[in-house]
Amino acid sequence: MWHGIIMAGGSGTRFWPLSRELYPKQFLSLDGANSLLQGTIHRIQPMIPQDRLWIMVGPKHESETRRVLRLAETEGLPARVFVEPQSRNTLAPLAVASLLIRKVDPDGVLAVMASDHLIGPQENFLALMKQACDIAEHNDVILTFGIQPVRPETGFGYLELGNQVSPASTDLARVFTVRRFVEKPDRETAIQFLAQKNHLWNSGMFVFRASTFLAELREHQRVFSEQLEEFAGTVGTPKEGKALKKLYDSAPNTSVDYGLLEHSRKVWALSAALDWKDVGSWSALDDFSEKDARGNVIRGNVISFHNDNCILFGDKRVLATIGVRDLIVVDTDDATLVCHKDEAQRVREVVSELKSQNRVEALEHRTTNRPWGQYTILDQGPHYKIKSVTVNPHSRLSYQMHLHRSEHWVVIAGTARITLEDKEIYLHVNQSIDIPKTTRHRIENPGKVPLIIIEVQNGEYLEEDDIIRFSDDYQRVSPEETSDTTRLHGGLA
Amino acid sequence: MWHGIIMAGGSGTRFWPLSRELYPKQFLSLDGANSLLQGTIHRIQPMIPQDRLWIMVGPKHESETRRVLRLAETEGLPARVFVEPQSRNTLAPLAVASLLIRKVDPDGVLAVMASDHLIGPQENFLALMKQACDIAEHNDVILTFGIQPVRPETGFGYLELGNQVSPASTDLARVFTVRRFVEKPDRETAIQFLAQKNHLWNSGMFVFRASTFLAELREHQRVFSEQLEEFAGTVGTPKEGKALKKLYDSAPNTSVDYGLLEHSRKVWALSAALDWKDVGSWSALDDFSEKDARGNVIRGNVISFHNDNCILFGDKRVLATIGVRDLIVVDTDDATLVCHKDEAQRVREVVSELKSQNRVEALEHRTTNRPWGQYTILDQGPHYKIKSVTVNPHSRLSYQMHLHRSEHWVVIAGTARITLEDKEIYLHVNQSIDIPKTTRHRIENPGKVPLIIIEVQNGEYLEEDDIIRFSDDYQRVSPEETSDTTRLHGGLA
Repeated sequence: MWHGIIMAGGSGTRFWPLSRELYPKQFLSLDGANSLLQGTIHRIQPMIPQDRLWIMVGPKHESETRRVLRLAETEGLPARVFVEPQSRNTLAPLAVASLLIRKVDPDGVLAVMASDHLIGPQENFLALMKQACDIAEHNDVILTFGIQPVRPETGFGYLELGNQVSPASTDLARVFTVRRFVEKPDRETAIQFLAQKNHLWNSGMFVFRASTFLAELREHQRVFSEQLEEFAGTVGTPKEGKALKKLYDSAPNTSVDYGLLEHSRKVWALSAALDWKDVGSWSALDDFSEKDARGNVIRGNVISFHNDNCILFGDKRVLATIGVRDLIVVDTDDATLVCHKDEAQRVREVVSELKSQNRVEALEHRTTNRPWGQYTILDQGPHYKIKSVTVNPHSRLSYQMHLHRSEHWVVIAGTARITLEDKEIYLHVNQSIDIPKTTRHRIENPGKVPLIIIEVQNGEYLEEDDIIRFSDDYQRVSPEETSDTTRLHGGLA
Repeated sequence: MWHGIIMAGGSGTRFWPLSRELYPKQFLSLDGANSLLQGTIHRIQPMIPQDRLWIMVGPKHESETRRVLRLAETEGLPARVFVEPQSRNTLAPLAVASLLIRKVDPDGVLAVMASDHLIGPQENFLALMKQACDIAEHNDVILTFGIQPVRPETGFGYLELGNQVSPASTDLARVFTVRRFVEKPDRETAIQFLAQKNHLWNSGMFVFRASTFLAELREHQRVFSEQLEEFAGTVGTPKEGKALKKLYDSAPNTSVDYGLLEHSRKVWALSAALDWKDVGSWSALDDFSEKDARGNVIRGNVISFHNDNCILFGDKRVLATIGVRDLIVVDTDDATLVCHKDEAQRVREVVSELKSQNRVEALEHRTTNRPWGQYTILDQGPHYKIKSVTVNPHSRLSYQMHLHRSEHWVVIAGTARITLEDKEIYLHVNQSIDIPKTTRHRIENPGKVPLIIIEVQNGEYLEEDDIIRFSDDYQRVSPEETSDTTRLHGGLA
């Protein structure tokens, strides 16, 4: 059978301030429609049913990934979220995915995709992916998707093609052996590659049988391969979580290209006629965005006078721009970026600087999504925090308690059912309630329209981890109760 | 006696988003120290006692002007705030000021200053102003302060000098007759003026006897002069407010230069050796601000990488700027400006656009000062508004009631004394209270540290004018009770 593997790592630095460490690129909607992750799921869904889709994520992105999945999923068994215990580039998660799939489907084929690329047209993608899966089913090879370069790009890796593999080639796509992998070239080399026509962009899409991948791993990464097989014995046992953590601790922190494919003699490249975009930085938005008459890409709350070739993203407040050119201006609730297009790669430096100052603007947005809805921090200061909390219809937060803070709630829209210790109380617009610290409480929206509550927190410690959960519709547990086993089984459930 | 007249009109468009219609330039601190208005008051205070200072303001700026005065004032009788019934350029307020001063001091001399200029050094200013007042006391002339040009400025008016008036001249400053007033010249003309050395910048500072001004007005503006004398008969009577309104309705909407001085043959110019700056737009900040090694003026919450010659004003959120040059970037709670320095004059166009869309960002800030403290709007939506309210120690809001909204308060700092109908309640941090609509209430800070309350408003109408005041420490009345008489007498009190 064919299985889809969506690699949803990502560090959230290049699209700051729209992306954050807890909200990386795959969650963004850069083309104004779906998030990149949702687009990736929709793209493969016609070919691979969602219960054979595996989303590989780091622990920080599990919650938001599950939320996107709920938005993207159709009827039937849900997609699988595999939560990595830590970030380990692409070799380790692909090895684990191959292992887990081999266990349930010994001849299974993996179609590996990035979660944050723009790819079209849809028919071509599906036809090429089917061709690739067919080839992988019948050949002991790792198939890469190569894209014919259209410019001397220095930001991508390249595949140098060998001979054409005639039996595997079709009218749609020719298939080649791969002579070598070339790391990001300098400009002169990139210009040569463009002229020679035998170098393709390495798109980060791969198709292979689980068994082929694991055999190649055994040959080129013997130590890791043995550790992996050791882990294999624990899968489905109570030891699994701890064993996975151990495996990841010692796994090579490297990409599948560098750690395996460059050394393998079983790599083929499929020359894919696709409109493929690895949107690498803010300036890359120019490639696919609609522009006004003066070349500006404008979204949201913007007043633009006499500007040229700018990317202007407004949000809640007014962004007024006058007489500027070649700028990226991105406004968010708690951070504003003004950057020359030529310097878009330097956005990372700002994120590094913010991290070194321990500033929350590197980590997360003012608005945080939760399975039951979302909250926005309106203001905070010593010993207080003010949030606007939106609870979706027929949803409820966990039954919980705080050790260090009291909470005051005022309903401003919808109707709330509040549990406070043994009592159940209905609150409607214009009513309020105080929740003293160490009392057990729950907010529920029993109604058909969103419930909005203003929450004023008071206390000596106001972080999100001051929460003891007694029961939860979303199987979340309090931080002190978290174990890796729980996380992993939650992830595979 | 000598009287100081500070002209504090101003429309708040050129320094948007830092300035707003309700918060024009004179209230800003552009040099990082005092507001321009406070600086103007401090500058003249050593020479003219504050009870002979008159601040001429439009009705929208009365409250903020009084707040600045409280900050600037020393012991003794307070300065006078004259509230114009509407904005009418400079001729009308100077005519009324002359009239009111003639009434209490027939030989009184008026020293007229703008409220929003930067002037130094202080000793020179005081010495020149004394010389000018001495001259005006003994000569039937209107004395203007001319500034020797240092660049071919096209944004100012010029004074063409006639003959030197030897008896009035001193070692400090020579005095000349004025041959003519020249409106803002083109660049070629400005270059000639700079070379010829007989043209001075018209600084907007004037010194004259009230009687001289009124006599000149009679000669050159006969109709308005007669209307003014008609108004004079009502001053101090119950008819004064209405008469002032009528006078302003028909007053010429013109500057004192254009409406009087250009026609007068009694104008002298004092060549003032002053460092004088009419800070006309954001780009003018370069003239007097401290810069980093790459020529950037940086204030507040800014991360600046590889920028040149920019003006970067951060506020609460992070402003990150990378690789830009010659930009003005100003971030505020509800609006962000990104503007090329060469286009700084176009900031007005943004304000016009916002006004045409009826947007509040043209009018006021999220944070509004009040005599008792300030409030900030944290969030608002249909039927709700959330404010952070800070009450200064030993201050209280009016005893008031709302017809259309209920309020919910949570104390997050300090101690509140709440009056709710007949009850008096103390609330401390972490306590809350609900104020139903149509109940009379008052918040007071009886303590020694600021009181901060989070207020959640619910209701069908949430504007500031839904307030019925029963008593107020600051003599404010409810909108429906306002009359011009009240305003005027409040203004002269």
